[in-house]
Amino acid sequence: MIKTKAYAAQNEKTPLAPWDFERREVGPHDVQFDILYCGVCHSDLSQVTNEWFPGLFPMVPGHEIVGRVVKVGEHVKNFKVGDLAGTGCVVDSCQVCENCKQNMEQYCLEVRTFTYNNLGRDGMPTYGGYSNTIVVREEFVLHISDKLDLAAVAPLLCAGITTYSPLRLWKVGKGHKLAVLGLGGLGHMAVKFGIAFGAEVTVLSTSPKKEEDAKKLGAHHFLVTTDPEQLAAARGAFDFILDTVSAEHDINMYLSLLRTHGVHICVGLPPKPAEISVFSLTGGSKILTGSGMGGIKETQEMLDYCAENNIVSEIELIDIRDIQKAYDRMHKGDVRYRFVIDMASL
Amino acid sequence: MIKTKAYAAQNEKTPLAPWDFERREVGPHDVQFDILYCGVCHSDLSQVTNEWFPGLFPMVPGHEIVGRVVKVGEHVKNFKVGDLAGTGCVVDSCQVCENCKQNMEQYCLEVRTFTYNNLGRDGMPTYGGYSNTIVVREEFVLHISDKLDLAAVAPLLCAGITTYSPLRLWKVGKGHKLAVLGLGGLGHMAVKFGIAFGAEVTVLSTSPKKEEDAKKLGAHHFLVTTDPEQLAAARGAFDFILDTVSAEHDINMYLSLLRTHGVHICVGLPPKPAEISVFSLTGGSKILTGSGMGGIKETQEMLDYCAENNIVSEIELIDIRDIQKAYDRMHKGDVRYRFVIDMASL
Repeated sequence: MIKTKAYAAQNEKTPLAPWDFERREVGPHDVQFDILYCGVCHSDLSQVTNEWFPGLFPMVPGHEIVGRVVKVGEHVKNFKVGDLAGTGCVVDSCQVCENCKQNMEQYCLEVRTFTYNNLGRDGMPTYGGYSNTIVVREEFVLHISDKLDLAAVAPLLCAGITTYSPLRLWKVGKGHKLAVLGLGGLGHMAVKFGIAFGAEVTVLSTSPKKEEDAKKLGAHHFLVTTDPEQLAAARGAFDFILDTVSAEHDINMYLSLLRTHGVHICVGLPPKPAEISVFSLTGGSKILTGSGMGGIKETQEMLDYCAENNIVSEIELIDIRDIQKAYDRMHKGDVRYRFVIDMASL
Repeated sequence: MIKTKAYAAQNEKTPLAPWDFERREVGPHDVQFDILYCGVCHSDLSQVTNEWFPGLFPMVPGHEIVGRVVKVGEHVKNFKVGDLAGTGCVVDSCQVCENCKQNMEQYCLEVRTFTYNNLGRDGMPTYGGYSNTIVVREEFVLHISDKLDLAAVAPLLCAGITTYSPLRLWKVGKGHKLAVLGLGGLGHMAVKFGIAFGAEVTVLSTSPKKEEDAKKLGAHHFLVTTDPEQLAAARGAFDFILDTVSAEHDINMYLSLLRTHGVHICVGLPPKPAEISVFSLTGGSKILTGSGMGGIKETQEMLDYCAENNIVSEIELIDIRDIQKAYDRMHKGDVRYRFVIDMASL
């Protein structure tokens, strides 16, 4: 077994604190890499506080993980010691179901193991990236380019792929008007990808203060959703809305901003159900959909695309001892745009 | 002005009763046809009782209207006296907006006049098909084949096009597993179209008693949604669900029956918002959409398709004096599958 240092929550009420545990030995198909950086996703906060469902404790959050390979199993073909490596939200799937065969491991129909707060096929709990090292089955390890700032790459493993995947699925690009709802970790990546794919990007926000930030990120337009006049003027304006908001919000209002046959894509995960009037959908054949993460092949494609196009997350690097402070700020929306833990501080 | 006999509700609490009013004179672009049959749509009941929103009273419901032309305006080109004619849910639109130009008059971005319970561009209320004659702008009058039972054609003008249109939009056909939720006026038409388009059709119903009916209509399978075993076996089974239910129901449960990227299409109109968990959408990228009626060009295409393929509604012909009894039975779901008023009884 591999002695591992981490930060964990012992239950949903205690703050994260140092905790040691053991990871499995490196199996023949496993890659072990030492973690250099780990992004702090809003879902870390949701899970560690049982906002979605009762979690498995002790919990070591973190699924935006990058580092350097220190050991590989004897059958591992695509990684060697010294390589940069990354892991996102999923560390195992059946590999044989219809969805896995179509490179949608995140929607595996049999088993699907999340990077933390889950049980693996061996029945053991999984522990995430707020730790110094990790052992992952080769098929779920990503290659990371050395061209980009490694700390700023970490958030691509969740915030990046979660926004990239639906924009690709719906073929968002030139000629499309894309609205990005919420300008946080996911939202700012959606703006970057939307622009890279050629769409005309509008940031929708309740806060007029974010206009400057939105423009800095390259957004073409900014719309304050609390201003009735701006809202009225935008009725039917957008082909797509990418909704990154994890707090309660009125989706019906946003559906009214879509053109006929327009698509509202949820990637944020509010804990409570949304109240959707069927009239909001039938009037103009609006489409409401959601998307979860992305498959491994697509995640690699996204990482390669980012390396080619010089796309990374905007980050604030933190010491792991400041993780609770970071959670508090994230809870208040005070982050531009992703906290990333420098794991050297562990 | 044209003296017109009708059945109307004087307010949301009174039963329908005889009422006389005047329709506009036949203008240069108008067609007047005497109404032979009018279907009874669930939305007639919803509107006459203010279930959706406060209505305009006196209200003459009815938007599944067929009859024979008795007068045409001087500029009318496509209809002559003696022709069979029909009108559905919409009797006017701007004709120049982006949606109208794309033959989606039902989603007109400027003005859109419903056949009843609405104000026309002249500011006058519209009155529907529970009446002996109607005057409609030529562009909103449909040609009706004499090959089919005219009374059974009437429901095609709403129940028919409302189910035909989304099935065509989503290209439902061979190789697809289509579930039809609810076996009423819309549902039974959805079964007929689904089969005609080559899909494998399953009827979903809370009532095991409907199995025989479903099979008689040609459905390949039947699933009782109150049976947990049948539900569990059907997880991820369907490519499409066409949801015709106007009562409250848990859409999340139905989303779980869709395969990855599967599509749930609402055409029923529950008055209260549905509670949708975003997790139901993100887990498997499910699509929730709605569809309202269809455009005029597509309605004509549907009517022609039905004439070619011998498709009509299953109806129960009633005397207009029994309309309240029919409403009571419809409210209880006791109709196979559409009441049609024989207007000779007016």
